Amino acid sequence: MNEHFHFACHKVDGQARLSTFETPHGAIQMPAFAPVGTLANVKTLEPRDLTELGAQLILANTYHLYMRPGHELIERMGGLHAFMAWDGPILTDSGGYQVFSLADQRKLTDDGVTFRSHIDGSIHHFTPESVMAIEQALGPDIAMVLDECPDPLDRGYNMAALARTHRWAERCKAAHDRPDQALFGIVQGGIFPDLRQKSARFLGELDFDGYAVGGLAVGETKEQMYATLDETCPALPADKPRYLMGVGAPEDIVESVHRGIDMFDCVLPTRIARNGSLFTPEGRINLRNARFAEDPRPVQEDCTCYTCRTFSRAYLRHLYKAKEITALRLGTIHNLHFMMTLMADIREAIAAGRFDAFREAFLARFQISNQAVRHEQRARRKAAMSDKMTG
Amino acid sequence: MNEHFHFACHKVDGQARLSTFETPHGAIQMPAFAPVGTLANVKTLEPRDLTELGAQLILANTYHLYMRPGHELIERMGGLHAFMAWDGPILTDSGGYQVFSLADQRKLTDDGVTFRSHIDGSIHHFTPESVMAIEQALGPDIAMVLDECPDPLDRGYNMAALARTHRWAERCKAAHDRPDQALFGIVQGGIFPDLRQKSARFLGELDFDGYAVGGLAVGETKEQMYATLDETCPALPADKPRYLMGVGAPEDIVESVHRGIDMFDCVLPTRIARNGSLFTPEGRINLRNARFAEDPRPVQEDCTCYTCRTFSRAYLRHLYKAKEITALRLGTIHNLHFMMTLMADIREAIAAGRFDAFREAFLARFQISNQAVRHEQRARRKAAMSDKMTG
Repeated sequence: MNEHFHFACHKVDGQARLSTFETPHGAIQMPAFAPVGTLANVKTLEPRDLTELGAQLILANTYHLYMRPGHELIERMGGLHAFMAWDGPILTDSGGYQVFSLADQRKLTDDGVTFRSHIDGSIHHFTPESVMAIEQALGPDIAMVLDECPDPLDRGYNMAALARTHRWAERCKAAHDRPDQALFGIVQGGIFPDLRQKSARFLGELDFDGYAVGGLAVGETKEQMYATLDETCPALPADKPRYLMGVGAPEDIVESVHRGIDMFDCVLPTRIARNGSLFTPEGRINLRNARFAEDPRPVQEDCTCYTCRTFSRAYLRHLYKAKEITALRLGTIHNLHFMMTLMADIREAIAAGRFDAFREAFLARFQISNQAVRHEQRARRKAAMSDKMTG
Repeated sequence: MNEHFHFACHKVDGQARLSTFETPHGAIQMPAFAPVGTLANVKTLEPRDLTELGAQLILANTYHLYMRPGHELIERMGGLHAFMAWDGPILTDSGGYQVFSLADQRKLTDDGVTFRSHIDGSIHHFTPESVMAIEQALGPDIAMVLDECPDPLDRGYNMAALARTHRWAERCKAAHDRPDQALFGIVQGGIFPDLRQKSARFLGELDFDGYAVGGLAVGETKEQMYATLDETCPALPADKPRYLMGVGAPEDIVESVHRGIDMFDCVLPTRIARNGSLFTPEGRINLRNARFAEDPRPVQEDCTCYTCRTFSRAYLRHLYKAKEITALRLGTIHNLHFMMTLMADIREAIAAGRFDAFREAFLARFQISNQAVRHEQRARRKAAMSDKMTG
């Protein structure tokens, strides 16, 4: 790490960590959740909304921005911060996940990966070096290395992929030279403890500015995911932030903080909001349900978000049923406010040394609907990729 | 008019009038433009946006709200103001326009009109009395009478329809008894001066709280519309507001204020914004155009709206091209800000006794693109109705 970045762990409660990661565009209080702005925009929102919501970090997608409007255009327009008018911290993924899930006809070699655009069928080639050039042009505060994303349940594939992912990580580290941009490595290895530990140790020696756990929430059960974190986190350097990619269900966040994770990103809160599914402390409710037709209450009684301060469930249901765009926005505001409040509550609980009690109380109250879980698992297994890609 | 409403004309400059219309939810400074919130929501916006934009009056559509969520539900939820959380003035149309343009298989008798819902094919019957009951249940500050909307170029149809429209106006007046709600009559008669004058005189004698000019901007040329206003406005009572329904092109507003109109509503500024077409003092520009791909300027250099204060044309073009919902909202904010600024400028010019000079300067600068006009005319002639219906 250089003078632009600083990680400080203030308190450890069990495995849960209260920390701060300072970046050129501000400090991130951790554990933190990053809303996803796939195309340099958190869908339906504006920067002033993100500020009002207390968002500390936004994720943008390298693959999508490379496709359109192009990283070179964004660089000419002053980089991502200027382009999207967001002056806070930004993280970009490497595009690897999208290439392996979304693009057609990819061809993988040790050099890199050739693939067809999901937009116009044109052919592209990503290498560790080209992805570093793209991310450096985009200019986020945190860049991610290019990795290969195998099926987490396929041991053979994970063994074969891990060596290549590690070589790519070394090449990314060598190619990256922008001092005002942190570079995070990505631990792979599926659900296999020995592979995860090997990966964590290998990458740890490369001295990245932070470490992501990749390749989870894409097919395995929640129990397998939690068990993988149990094995992986202790093998990661203690003096760097730990980032669980693509995870954002409230129960998963609480369970992952409990296992030592500091950062999260996920399209889940924003995507389900656009489907009418909103978080409450008791679990998700879907406002399209007929039982809300004349419900004068806000989505969540004690919530201080604009949506809950202003509108009834009855009105929001009307907007969702009538397919009004405003509904998608008002739902997004509530769900992100819920996430930001959850993260603040988690930080407060760790600071007070009572995270275990917080976790137990949260999980006892927050009902995970079986339908929602089944839906999630189906989506993860099959088309999670194309869902995720559209943010 | 009763104690809830008061119309005061402060200044007349040529035919242009500077006035105030006081309603139970606040005073409307006129000439005024009302954004359209078809389904009790101005698409992509929230009440706080409308307040920030300086909107003084919102239109909502009786036909659409009767269909969903239903006027009785809205009444049980406390009426439109409470339901949509907008505490300023609201006007509802009568639904007549939508019945005649949008619904299928309508059957017209002197009693009323029977039609099929455009949503589920169910059969409904509107009479002057039932429409008054619906509008009184919805609870806007201003309600409109039920009228018949003929092709403005068909003299025979207009002659036949006018008698029925006038009887319906009488029946609406008789059925309306909510003192905190103004009731406006609607002048019909197509582009025919004798019919318009007859209609204006007949309705004038019924002593409505205001008068709308209906049945324009649906097939005639701009010149025919302006000529019709030349004949109609002088025949209307001078001590009541005059409302030109469904007109919102900036050049039409300036020309209509010049002829004595005080109020406007139209989906145009919000609808074209969702297509990427934004107003500038020089005319419309479409942000989807490739020439804006790297344009670092705001949409309009001197504009103070959030969109122009914050984003480049390049970024907005990217959002439009990528079909991001946020683009629709940012465009809507700009176009409504343009309209609110135009109306404020018009009021200022009338107050200073220089409206004619303002009009000439505005029209000399504001280029009406032939393509836009042709498109408008096609849309007006054929499917304007279904466009309007969706707000």
